[in-house]
Amino acid sequence: MQNIIERLLQGDRRALARMVTLIENEIPQARQYLAELHQHTGNAHILGVTGAPGAGKSTLVTRLVRELRNRERKVGVVAVDPTSPFTGGAILGDRIRMMELAGDPNIFIRSMASRGNLGGLAASTRDVVRAMDAAGYDPIIIETVGTGQAEVEVMRTAQTVLVVVAPGMGDDIQAIKAGILEIADLFIVSKMDRPGANQTVAELAMLLSLDPKRKQVAWRVPILKTSALKGQGIAEVVDAIQQHRASLEESGTWLLRAQRQVRSELQTLVIQAVMKSLSASVTQEEWDTFIEDITRRERDPYTVAQELERRIGLKRE
Amino acid sequence: MQNIIERLLQGDRRALARMVTLIENEIPQARQYLAELHQHTGNAHILGVTGAPGAGKSTLVTRLVRELRNRERKVGVVAVDPTSPFTGGAILGDRIRMMELAGDPNIFIRSMASRGNLGGLAASTRDVVRAMDAAGYDPIIIETVGTGQAEVEVMRTAQTVLVVVAPGMGDDIQAIKAGILEIADLFIVSKMDRPGANQTVAELAMLLSLDPKRKQVAWRVPILKTSALKGQGIAEVVDAIQQHRASLEESGTWLLRAQRQVRSELQTLVIQAVMKSLSASVTQEEWDTFIEDITRRERDPYTVAQELERRIGLKRE
Repeated sequence: MQNIIERLLQGDRRALARMVTLIENEIPQARQYLAELHQHTGNAHILGVTGAPGAGKSTLVTRLVRELRNRERKVGVVAVDPTSPFTGGAILGDRIRMMELAGDPNIFIRSMASRGNLGGLAASTRDVVRAMDAAGYDPIIIETVGTGQAEVEVMRTAQTVLVVVAPGMGDDIQAIKAGILEIADLFIVSKMDRPGANQTVAELAMLLSLDPKRKQVAWRVPILKTSALKGQGIAEVVDAIQQHRASLEESGTWLLRAQRQVRSELQTLVIQAVMKSLSASVTQEEWDTFIEDITRRERDPYTVAQELERRIGLKRE
Repeated sequence: MQNIIERLLQGDRRALARMVTLIENEIPQARQYLAELHQHTGNAHILGVTGAPGAGKSTLVTRLVRELRNRERKVGVVAVDPTSPFTGGAILGDRIRMMELAGDPNIFIRSMASRGNLGGLAASTRDVVRAMDAAGYDPIIIETVGTGQAEVEVMRTAQTVLVVVAPGMGDDIQAIKAGILEIADLFIVSKMDRPGANQTVAELAMLLSLDPKRKQVAWRVPILKTSALKGQGIAEVVDAIQQHRASLEESGTWLLRAQRQVRSELQTLVIQAVMKSLSASVTQEEWDTFIEDITRRERDPYTVAQELERRIGLKRE
């Protein structure tokens, strides 16, 4: 029982892999284990890497991992695909390239896919990151496939968010406008060997200068240029990541973000418990009857909601 | 007490205005009234109008309302601005044009703004629509300002969603890709007098043909062309809206959507009650202590979440 925790804390990869499987399969015991592991976490710098499909995220992550290994860091990677129907250790085409890294005992890579419950995916990702943190991985990189709402939610777990943009994809700049801009701590323009790369950098600089929120923050979001073809720019990205952490700590934002994340996690955990309690207290047949009655205007949603609240024992004000 | 309900059901505008204010201010009595009103609802066709800023949404809505009045319909309009800091009947620049309609007793227009709680905005919008429905307005048009996640959430209340796109704004086509495509029942290309309008129509047609989900649905999303300058296309839009309703009813989707909305409303109501119960059962000081303890690794989030669940009385499985 206790064995898995002790072994995980000693950095045993098989114990960590087992824990991740327990989390993914939502085995109740996983939470008991995670509760014990929590006190051993908080060391890892959690990085988020996001960007449109084709922007070069996987290539960046692969090269970041190599650079971090050169600096003797023990690196965790969680690849999150909210749209994939696969469960438990999904295999994603792009990620096969990462396999070349998988032989190194100081690299732990795991893919995660959605089970249709997006809030659940963000929660599982947080739990997997917690387990990796306890096992001594630092930094831990969370990579998402797209740039939708699910990805933004997952990215909230990260302390430093890298947004990857490839030149010549006008789309990306637009996608960034839509909601990614606010969460970006670093922009990475990949494929700088391509035509139009400098224009993409200029457009991003313009976009950042137009964002009024940016002026209130101590950290000035850098735009970093990389080229996998020429093997350039990766050391600068790793340096910028470390500068960002230092800036967060200096300004007190590190602690504020941690507190905000804890609050949000507590709310998510309570809501998950409420949903479970609802499933346990109301049968599928009863749900159908409630919904039919409301649709037919025989009962109203407010009264039925109160009935549901009574069923789960919720205290009234 | 009961008076407001009777008057509202008779179509009294002042009673309706009072009810909307009660909803916006989250007066507990509002829900008691709405519970009684529910049995008198379900007649209105609820339309959603969305699109990027500058696409021409307000112009379209103004002209739709006029056309619907020509067809002797009693029209409700709810203008939703998730980004506006104003509360209760926010005044939005664009909407001043709608004032010209406000003298007509068969038109009821109300603006709503966010109070920072996006889920709450969708819930209030649903409640205001319910009150207008009970007061005999049909159709009821929900207009949103942007195309973000909040707007998509608000749009779920609508049975027919119109997405407005202006020509020559490459942005719009991109924004549509990002999440609006799935919820569109009708596309409206506004400003057809502008250069590039036909290209926008062609691009939208392409986008729709590429969406695999569309092929599973009986309704073929039409792309309608309007020009406010030339006064063209509005009657066709109103006809298409009616055809969409007929198609939904014929295929059984009307009922399925209504049931899905009821289920989602019930969950939202329960979660709102949980959040209220949490506020009532846990003081701000206690929250701060919980969060600090977790951040300092003196307690873990799972155990604290269980403590919170006990506080609100939640039954364990």
